[in-house]
Formats: sequence, structure tokens, C-alpha cells
Amino acid sequence: MAKQENKTISGFSKLNKRGKIKWIVENFFKEPEAVMNELMSYWHINDEKQKILDEISENTISNFHLPYGVAPNFVIDQRAFAVPMVIEESSVVAAASSSAKYWMERGGFSTEVISTVKIGHIHFYTSGSVQLLRSVFAQLKASLMTEVKALTTNMNKRGGGILDIELLDFSELEPDYYQLRVKFETCDSMGANFINSVLEQFASSFVRFCKTNDVVRSTLGDIEVVMSILSNYTPECIVRSEVSCPISDLGKYPGGLSAEDFAKRFYKAVRIAQIDPYRAVTHNKGIFNGIDAVVLATGNDFRAIEAGGHAYAARDGQYRGLSQCTIDGGQFRFWLEIPLAVGTVGGLTNIHPVARRSIELLGHPSARQLMSIIASVGLAQNFAALRSLVTTGIQKGHMRMHLVNILRQFEATEKEIKQTLVYFKDKVVSFSAVRDYLNLLRDKML
Amino acid sequence: MAKQENKTISGFSKLNKRGKIKWIVENFFKEPEAVMNELMSYWHINDEKQKILDEISENTISNFHLPYGVAPNFVIDQRAFAVPMVIEESSVVAAASSSAKYWMERGGFSTEVISTVKIGHIHFYTSGSVQLLRSVFAQLKASLMTEVKALTTNMNKRGGGILDIELLDFSELEPDYYQLRVKFETCDSMGANFINSVLEQFASSFVRFCKTNDVVRSTLGDIEVVMSILSNYTPECIVRSEVSCPISDLGKYPGGLSAEDFAKRFYKAVRIAQIDPYRAVTHNKGIFNGIDAVVLATGNDFRAIEAGGHAYAARDGQYRGLSQCTIDGGQFRFWLEIPLAVGTVGGLTNIHPVARRSIELLGHPSARQLMSIIASVGLAQNFAALRSLVTTGIQKGHMRMHLVNILRQFEATEKEIKQTLVYFKDKVVSFSAVRDYLNLLRDKML
Repeated sequence: MAKQENKTISGFSKLNKRGKIKWIVENFFKEPEAVMNELMSYWHINDEKQKILDEISENTISNFHLPYGVAPNFVIDQRAFAVPMVIEESSVVAAASSSAKYWMERGGFSTEVISTVKIGHIHFYTSGSVQLLRSVFAQLKASLMTEVKALTTNMNKRGGGILDIELLDFSELEPDYYQLRVKFETCDSMGANFINSVLEQFASSFVRFCKTNDVVRSTLGDIEVVMSILSNYTPECIVRSEVSCPISDLGKYPGGLSAEDFAKRFYKAVRIAQIDPYRAVTHNKGIFNGIDAVVLATGNDFRAIEAGGHAYAARDGQYRGLSQCTIDGGQFRFWLEIPLAVGTVGGLTNIHPVARRSIELLGHPSARQLMSIIASVGLAQNFAALRSLVTTGIQKGHMRMHLVNILRQFEATEKEIKQTLVYFKDKVVSFSAVRDYLNLLRDKML
Repeated sequence: MAKQENKTISGFSKLNKRGKIKWIVENFFKEPEAVMNELMSYWHINDEKQKILDEISENTISNFHLPYGVAPNFVIDQRAFAVPMVIEESSVVAAASSSAKYWMERGGFSTEVISTVKIGHIHFYTSGSVQLLRSVFAQLKASLMTEVKALTTNMNKRGGGILDIELLDFSELEPDYYQLRVKFETCDSMGANFINSVLEQFASSFVRFCKTNDVVRSTLGDIEVVMSILSNYTPECIVRSEVSCPISDLGKYPGGLSAEDFAKRFYKAVRIAQIDPYRAVTHNKGIFNGIDAVVLATGNDFRAIEAGGHAYAARDGQYRGLSQCTIDGGQFRFWLEIPLAVGTVGGLTNIHPVARRSIELLGHPSARQLMSIIASVGLAQNFAALRSLVTTGIQKGHMRMHLVNILRQFEATEKEIKQTLVYFKDKVVSFSAVRDYLNLLRDKML
């Protein structure tokens, strides 16, 4: 008789891992035992390692395997890298590799870290006059800096710390609303925990200061701190990566397209992403295909990078492509300027065993070097995507890559795969075409 | 004697997997054998399964394990789900679970799929007059639709297909630049391959039509199709998820905060994200923490979701928070409206063995149901983050979660972990504080 199913539960997080899996498979799957075994088959063979993975997140019952690939031949600022990439989309690593090699033969990527400032805020409301707060602001700053010392000593030693504290007035947009905006340098760490800990300490110091300082207390009254938190918008933590070469060196393209015509078409594709937000979104999505793959491989946080990057793309009031292209004076130039707040120490980078190996593979880069590498992979990805789009179209290469994946869905045998690959060598690949061909094969119609 | 290192390579993709690993470890690592063994230890024990994973991407040498967790107690449109989440950031799954349970006790999440239209473009240039193209547009449409039939039959059977084709004039922004904008319904698939294949077919039909139609040929001359591709900006593929309850039911909060005061502070936090882009980015980043975790677990493409979502956040010219809150008439209401172009069939969802299990765990949802689930997890995540921010601050909970991770970095024993947890029960957790305490422990100073 079927067990009574319970779709909700109290105390799930308190169950041990097996208990969690048991509850899940018994209440949500038709074949509980098979699913339990399958989920457990993804555990790492070494218990210690698995424990590390389990404790990265909560309510963990298994691992989700993403392919760990490598894009070799990235020459960035005259140094060669084999870049680790973690991504579930086909064609991305192939495109990055192809683009890397293409530009290796044309001088490689040149980068510049433009700035590395990170920002956090104490958001507060007060109905009093903040004018007098300004008059004692030096005193407030000194007080905040003193009381936060236990948290900043370490970062100061590494050459980072708190750069500036400003008072911002938003009361015209929202009555009584102000900010303390704090700028940080966090060296080789992404710095989220450091920044948030400092801000929360600042917030309690700030409240105390306002309660105890005679000038402030009389004019400002009680302040209400709503929240204290870093911003993932980092338009002052920017890197530029660029490639360039004489237009005549761009090579020849399918269909007899000359280097010059290719350059013109490529330029137009970049230009379109500046004009039309519909195109800009997909253009930038391609850039992030490359960026996120390295961000993931190195244990950084891709949601933070994505949010900051896309907001930056909309900074002038219209969402636009993040890359730029010029074809002046016989020279092709293509570049990307993007905010990238990443770290190479601390956080998941030090915890995840494979993320640690990624950092080693990249030669233990500083955070600034990692910014350069990631931006270059993003640019390479964008170059490869646009190169395909303006020449053969992306579907030819992409669907060929995807062909084997489609075949696997139908549990094709190795023999069937070989036959199908031969058949589609000169045909348009689509899901249904592959399925139909496979059905014919299996029905011995061929 | 040290082997001569080669940091660049020709023919890497042609090497077999072991060959690739060998080249990588020998040229980039100090202990090649140990690293090779480590990378291989992440392979799945079953060769067939590993092969599937290997072929998802290119140049794959291992798997990157992300924690696979579950957030139970999501009641969405009166139905209970245990939601699979794949994420490398601590606290996210805990926050989603806590928020899910909180709202389960208050009526759960209500959702509405507002629309499911997807969009693609043929971007083209012509120096001729497009006025006459408009006069034969019905004829062009018919021709395009006929020639694409082989690709659309299957999608039509499933109830989807091509909804509309429009001609858009961008020539005021960029001389000679126009678009064919095509709208699609792709049912339960995300549809990227379908859309791109249709668009590329349209492009060649379009060029042929312009060459052979007498009216067009004489007035339009040659058209130049620059590219044909779907857009990841999907402001017509939108879902809304919302929660609401009487303010008095919101419960009590630390420090004696009443339900009413909590509601006011929460409202302010949502409002601030509408005003200040710096806050909006982080606000939305928190939403995507939840969204991307489900997107990944179900084999969907988080770069596409991120790009479309953030561009949507900037649609009125300023980047703003994606969620909204009202506290009118004694009622607390909190909701999220977001574009989510996801699929439950096709793509990686059918290929990745654990993604398939995720779909099963969710009860084989349609794409529309998956939109509802994902939006609800995003909203839950946002609720949990704001609830922490406006009450205790996020660092208290977050650093406690992170504490064990910090300890693992220092290879703390189970005994050391226990002692440290006890010690920090009433203290502020920071990386350096934990390290210092652990050093004292180890030096037997305690």
C-alpha cells in the first residue's frame, strides 16, 4: 500500500543528510530507492571532501555536477593562461578557446585595471536637520573609525581598509532618507563579509554617537537605521580588456567575405547592441557566458557580478552593450569595460577544493589579475559570438555541438551516434530532424 | 630536471580527456600527479553518466561540484513543493526555507503568469526605401512561413510556433538599419534553438525574397542581413508572485519590534531599492540568489535569466528593485514581477541526470508552473534578506553559517569546531577573530 505522502515538514534542517534524502524521495518520487541511490552516487568518494561540499550550503543532499573545462591559449598582457571554465551551456568553452587562439596569433589581450573601490551604505531616516550632523562629521568619522578597529586591523595590514565616509542626502526623493556611503579597498578578497561587518559596526556606533553627542541629539533626535549593507554595484571597480590588429590581419571568412567586410559587419553588430536594448541584453548575455564560467570556476559569486555588470550597462538611462568597437585608420579595435568585484582569497575560493585548483591553474593571481583574466574571457566570448553571428550564423556550430546532446536524450548507442553525425554533416540540425532520423534508423527504414 | 613548460598548445581539443588533463597538470601545477588524481576523483563512478556530463561542454577534464540542496515547505498556489536549489553561497537555502515556512503559515505564495511571448530579430541594413517592402509585407510573411515549415511543424503540434512578424525602422538612430521582429510561443521549452533556427531560415528566405520579388528588387536593392538571433530580453514573458497577510499577523521581532514597526521598516527597505540604484543592484542580487539556484537545479540558463531580469529592472531609465511592497489598510502585500524565459523540456533539462530529477521533484511542472515556482523562490529570498536586514542585520546569521567554512579553511578538527562554535555563541564572528581564537586554541593558550 502506498505510504501517505507528506509534502510539508517541520524540522527538515535538523535531519541528518540521509534523513533528508529519505524524506524527499519517499514523498516526491515514484521510485524512492532508485532515486536515493542515484543522488548518493554523486557524493564524492572521500568523506572529508564531501563534508566540505555539504557545508558550503544548507539542506544539502547531493552534488550538482557542472562540467569543468579548460580554455587554453589565453595570452593576456603577454602572459599565457589556460583558463578554467565551469558552464552547462554547450559551445561556450569551444568559442572561448577558438577566440583565445585567434587573438594569441594577433598579439593577445591587453588589460588595465582602472579602479578597485567597493562601496557600502548605512541607510537611515531622520526627521531632524542633518545640517548640524555635517558640522560634527569629522568627529563622527573619528568615532566610527576608532570603534571599528578590531575589524579593520587585519585588512589595514594587507594594504586595504576604509577609504572614505560621506553623508548623502536623498530627502528630496524620499522624506527623511539619508545615507552614510562608505568606500573600501579590500585587496585580494571580494570583501563582502568584511564590508558588511564594518557597516553593521558603524551603524551601532553611529546610533550611539547620535544619542550621546550633545549637538546631534538636540537637532537630529532619534535616527532610524533601516539597514547597513554593501552594494554589488561597483562602477568604481572597473577593468578594461582589449584586442586590436590591422584590419588586413583579420583573415578570411566563409562565403568569400574579406577581412574588411568582416570588420564592417562586426562593427555593425557591436553598434546595434548600443542602439537596441533587445539586442544589448543578448549581446551582454554572451559576454557573461564567458565571465560567469571563470567566476564559478574560481569560487566567486556570479549573481554579484551579473547584477553589477547589467546595472552598469544601463548607467546612462538605456540598457546597452558592454563592448565597443572601432575600425579607424585601418585598425580594428574591440574592447570591454566592466565592473568586476572578485577575490582570490577568502570566501568559497579557499574552501571549494576545485576552486582552489582553479586559482593554482591561473598561477595564483591577485584580485586585479583575476579581473583582467575574467574580462578577457568575456571579451573573447563576445568576439566569438559576434564572429559567428555575422558570418555563418550561430546555429550551424551550436547545433552540431548540441547534436550529441540530443542523441543522448534518446539514449542513442555509439553506433547510432556515429551514423547520425555522418548523416547530418551537410544538413541543418534541429531537435525534430534528429529525432526523426533516429526513429527511421531504429525502425530499420534506413 | 624540471620539464620544459609549455603554456600554449595547438590541438588541445583533439586530445582525449586524459591527454588534456596530462597537458594541464604537467604545465601548470607543481604536483602534476596529485592534481591529476584529484581532478579524476571528481569523475562520476559510472562511465556512461560521466560521458553525458563530459559532452555537455567542451575541453572538459572534471566536474565542478555545487551543493544540491532542498528548500521544503514552499506552498505556491495552494500546492506544496520541496524546491531543489544549486548554489555555492551559504545562507541562501536556509533563508529560502525559513521564508517558505513563514509564508506557508500565512497562506503561501500566489502567482500569475502574465504572458509567455519570446522575441527574436533579423537585423538588416538597406540603403533603399523600405516603404515598398511594407506594401508587399503580407506576401513576404507568407513566403517566410511557407519556407520555415519543416522547422515549425513540431512546435505547432505542441500548440506553439510563430505569433507575429513586424518590420521595425531604426534608421533615425542608425542610417539604413531595420529589423524584422518575430514573436514566438515555445510552450514548455525555453526555445532558444527553435527560435534561432527559425530566424536563420527566415533570413535566407528574406534575402531570396528581396532578390526575386520584382517590386522589392527595384526599390530596395540588396539587403544586408547582419545577424539573426533571439533576444534574451523577454518583457512579454512575465510572471508575478506575491504574498500578503494582515500586518498584525507578521509576528514579533528581536528587540521588541512590533509587527507594525517591522512592516514599516520592511516597506522602507523596498522603497529604498526603488530610489537608489546602488541599493537596487544588491536588492535584486538577493532575488537572483533564489532564482538562479532553481534555474541551475532545473538545467536552465541563468545568464539568460539574469540579463533579461536586470534589463527589465532598468526599463524606465533607472535601475530599480524588482519587488514592490504596500502596507495599506492593515494589509501587508509584497510581490515580484519578473521576466522568466525557462523550459522544462529540451536543452540541458533533459540531459543532465540531476536536472531531470529536479523536474521530477517538482512534479513535472509545465514551463508556466516553473515560472511561478522560480519567481516565488526569488520573492522568498528577497523577503528573508530584507527581514534580516531591517531587524538583526545579515551578518549575525550569515557569519554563523560561514563560521564552519572558515574553520574548514584552517583544517580544524571536529573538536576544535565544537569548541569554537561554543565560544562564538555570543560573539561577533569575523574571519580574523575565528583565526585568532583557533590559534590560541592550538597554542594551548586556552
